[in-house]
Amino acid sequence: MMAATTTQGRLIGVGVGPGDPELMTLKAVRTLAAADVVAHFAKKGNGSNARRIVAQHLRDGVEELPLLYPITTEAPKAESLYRDAICRFYDESAAAVARRLDAGCVVAVISEGDPLFYGSYMHLHVRLSARYPTEIVAGVTGMSGCWSAVGMPITQGDDVFVVLPATLPEQELARRFADTDAAVVMKIGRHLAKVRRALSRAGCLDRAIYVERGTTENAIAMPLESKRDDIAPYFSIVLVPGWEARS
Amino acid sequence: MMAATTTQGRLIGVGVGPGDPELMTLKAVRTLAAADVVAHFAKKGNGSNARRIVAQHLRDGVEELPLLYPITTEAPKAESLYRDAICRFYDESAAAVARRLDAGCVVAVISEGDPLFYGSYMHLHVRLSARYPTEIVAGVTGMSGCWSAVGMPITQGDDVFVVLPATLPEQELARRFADTDAAVVMKIGRHLAKVRRALSRAGCLDRAIYVERGTTENAIAMPLESKRDDIAPYFSIVLVPGWEARS
Repeated sequence: MMAATTTQGRLIGVGVGPGDPELMTLKAVRTLAAADVVAHFAKKGNGSNARRIVAQHLRDGVEELPLLYPITTEAPKAESLYRDAICRFYDESAAAVARRLDAGCVVAVISEGDPLFYGSYMHLHVRLSARYPTEIVAGVTGMSGCWSAVGMPITQGDDVFVVLPATLPEQELARRFADTDAAVVMKIGRHLAKVRRALSRAGCLDRAIYVERGTTENAIAMPLESKRDDIAPYFSIVLVPGWEARS
Repeated sequence: MMAATTTQGRLIGVGVGPGDPELMTLKAVRTLAAADVVAHFAKKGNGSNARRIVAQHLRDGVEELPLLYPITTEAPKAESLYRDAICRFYDESAAAVARRLDAGCVVAVISEGDPLFYGSYMHLHVRLSARYPTEIVAGVTGMSGCWSAVGMPITQGDDVFVVLPATLPEQELARRFADTDAAVVMKIGRHLAKVRRALSRAGCLDRAIYVERGTTENAIAMPLESKRDDIAPYFSIVLVPGWEARS
């Protein structure tokens, strides 16, 4: 049910941090307590990670609006059928949010990490922010959660720092590792063997740290060289610190 | 005064976010409430920005330990006299913190943004974390605060994202702008004219956003092309979004 309000609808992209509910900001907590509707993206059957993080801060009686991705496999991303389905899904999601905004609701869209840094929220933002008052609540990113969990200084002073998707070709990864002081590789999944070879070619495999399930209770972290297999979940990351043995 | 405790000393690097006190995490607030000593880096005469952010969360009677940089000018960084003075300062700061840790105190070292991402805390971390139990509380970075304040989606999907110090030579900046989807340039200060020329050479000046005093009440943000002068404070940044007009 929608809350009956007389105020103008407002869209708020709320970063809820990397996983540990204590890494939510005070502003995220206050925003959720005041929202009429809380929307979250999830894959069908998986439940939303962001929803799990904020669970204890949801107001009684708040309307929840799950936005469920129609497709869960990675493989056919390049195909136009997939692109069309995803685009239609974002259009329909934006329309569902817009109906609440038109009714005068404050709609908080929760995002793991930071909403504007690789977050699904952006697909709503570009469709709605020109038409409705919009606010962003910045969040702690997944990568900050990971290097903090490991206690690994990542960048200092005049370091160049780069974030790379693990989907890049091996040669491209190797070139970019060799051209930076520090790096984070995101969404490792089935690409770990390739990332490992690229790090080795760039001469920085010995500095790389593998982190799985970052700031959760089940976190796993180890030097990548110590990891015996190349099995990794989609959301695992590799850290290459730029700032080592310097002080 | 030091609190008399019987527990083992513990070092905690606490990220306090980009400026808005509401962007502190629940964990940062809880950590500060339980700390015996709160240490903060600052330039002499300036006061600590981190200290200002946490002011309302400091416990009555907590010991504060200001760590005051001996040198405030940027110019002589390459000189060995400067390097020696700074290194000695970090050694002395670590020794001051270690005395509290040896007395069994919990020492929270507060950092603007995230402690392990370009933060001064790291200089204590590398000197102390092998000798004392150490924990990091991740924080919202300054750059997240800035792109959120502007409502500017920065990266999505398989974007490559790079953080560059404004101190790099113009040609190097231009090369790196042309070789990435999204970029953030940190510590603009007296380098704005050079950054502007480099963006222009790389063909992305029209996408660049200038942000000053990110998440504070006095925030200034505008397309860099609209900024008429090249006067910028040290902690201003330039955002080059990688994700524009895509959806």
